[in-house]
Amino acid sequence: MPDLPSPVAPHPFDDALALDRRADGVFLGQTSEAWWNFIGPFGGLVAALLLRAVLDDPRRRGTPVALTANFTGAIARGAFELEPVLVRGGRTTQHWTVGLRQGDAVLATATVVCAQRGHTWGLQPATMPEVPPAADVEPFDLGGGVRWTGNYRFRFVAGAPAFSLTPHDPPRNARSLVWLEDMQPRPLDWLSLAALSDAFFPRVMHARGIPVRLGTVTMTTYFHADDDALAALGTCPVLGVADGDRFGSSFQDQRIQLWAPDGQLLVTGGQLLWYEA
Amino acid sequence: MPDLPSPVAPHPFDDALALDRRADGVFLGQTSEAWWNFIGPFGGLVAALLLRAVLDDPRRRGTPVALTANFTGAIARGAFELEPVLVRGGRTTQHWTVGLRQGDAVLATATVVCAQRGHTWGLQPATMPEVPPAADVEPFDLGGGVRWTGNYRFRFVAGAPAFSLTPHDPPRNARSLVWLEDMQPRPLDWLSLAALSDAFFPRVMHARGIPVRLGTVTMTTYFHADDDALAALGTCPVLGVADGDRFGSSFQDQRIQLWAPDGQLLVTGGQLLWYEA
Repeated sequence: MPDLPSPVAPHPFDDALALDRRADGVFLGQTSEAWWNFIGPFGGLVAALLLRAVLDDPRRRGTPVALTANFTGAIARGAFELEPVLVRGGRTTQHWTVGLRQGDAVLATATVVCAQRGHTWGLQPATMPEVPPAADVEPFDLGGGVRWTGNYRFRFVAGAPAFSLTPHDPPRNARSLVWLEDMQPRPLDWLSLAALSDAFFPRVMHARGIPVRLGTVTMTTYFHADDDALAALGTCPVLGVADGDRFGSSFQDQRIQLWAPDGQLLVTGGQLLWYEA
Repeated sequence: MPDLPSPVAPHPFDDALALDRRADGVFLGQTSEAWWNFIGPFGGLVAALLLRAVLDDPRRRGTPVALTANFTGAIARGAFELEPVLVRGGRTTQHWTVGLRQGDAVLATATVVCAQRGHTWGLQPATMPEVPPAADVEPFDLGGGVRWTGNYRFRFVAGAPAFSLTPHDPPRNARSLVWLEDMQPRPLDWLSLAALSDAFFPRVMHARGIPVRLGTVTMTTYFHADDDALAALGTCPVLGVADGDRFGSSFQDQRIQLWAPDGQLLVTGGQLLWYEA
């Protein structure tokens, strides 16, 4: 009798995003060790979880165009609940809010806009930075300080991390150019783009060169592609561009772009991080 | 008997932001003709109203660092309610949500982060564009198409609107540099910075040169100054920089900066707009 095919283990990202929908519409999930950051899950994964609760709600129409995730407190290891609320649904646009709870504590919130995109005049004023193809750039060894980074391959074209106990003097350029891809290949989708838009190291650390206690307070991602464009890309690296404009008095901004290898701008976004010292 | 001093009329911005707080913590307001846009109030005013409800809540601590306003439906002329909800308050950071309602319809929502900022290392990697001082730039005549623009003086250094019935061919650069100030002088504060971060014309109209039916879906503002810095500025123009990265399939992004005349970056932000045709 032939061996049965061995069951295929789910991709680590899909594993971490597994949700069960209760009869009342609340989704139940579990934190995932493979995506742990310093004191909680990787923020990009949390953003993807918040988005997934909306995308999996049977009332959802269209595809996501905007996501703002707010990180309100540290998420502990274990179970959590996600409750999507349809605030208002127009003819072509839906506005959602969603909260992540552990017990009575709301530890993350998001607003999500979904839309049925039309065929309109278009223009992409931004141009992709000239960089070598991902395959020509050496993967960067992040040294395994935190678990979540092991899920991605980082190939820095410029602005690789150079962290030590001695601050850069003068501070360095805070801009990074980095090819990002899933360590275990997986076709791009809304969820992975949401997560990848947080797969950068804080600009204040790039500029200053020393470890800093910090955390993302809020992040916003605008999705510029549609389902067909994403499906056509399939599994490929994305070029991440990250920079910041002002750091001071405990807060720093960061703005990012994610580019497909063909020069299509998939995502623009930003975030605000709290930092200490 | 001497004449009594005549009562001073409130500034049009303060007049439009007047709110009454009910015993249950809900704020009541009224739309304002002087701030009308095409089918509802100027979005920047709505953002300021949502922010004000949080700032005026007695539980608020610290100053605003981030605001995301979502425009979920057209606000009709008349009364509205604003309900701030303190989602979670940490030692130094508070997360709020707030909704604007008319009857049962939620027509705008916001998430607001307030924080007690500390004294930290700082850096401003962004540099202010080199422009002539505001006083050396002619005010632009917007022609009075909509009411809200009459509350501001626009002095375009680059990228002034040039709208007609014939599209630009090829499309123009979508970037604008514009000195913005209250037509009736008023010291800068959080509320005016929130409103000013929406005081731009949509990038797709700048690029294409023709009127387009459109509306902001969501906007995010990060505040980089603190109370002392704002108080020191007082009444002054701000330099607005606006550009966009990708326009297509019914949506366009826009990113903005607001600069103080002394080269201090006060605000960075972005928004996503729906457009037709």
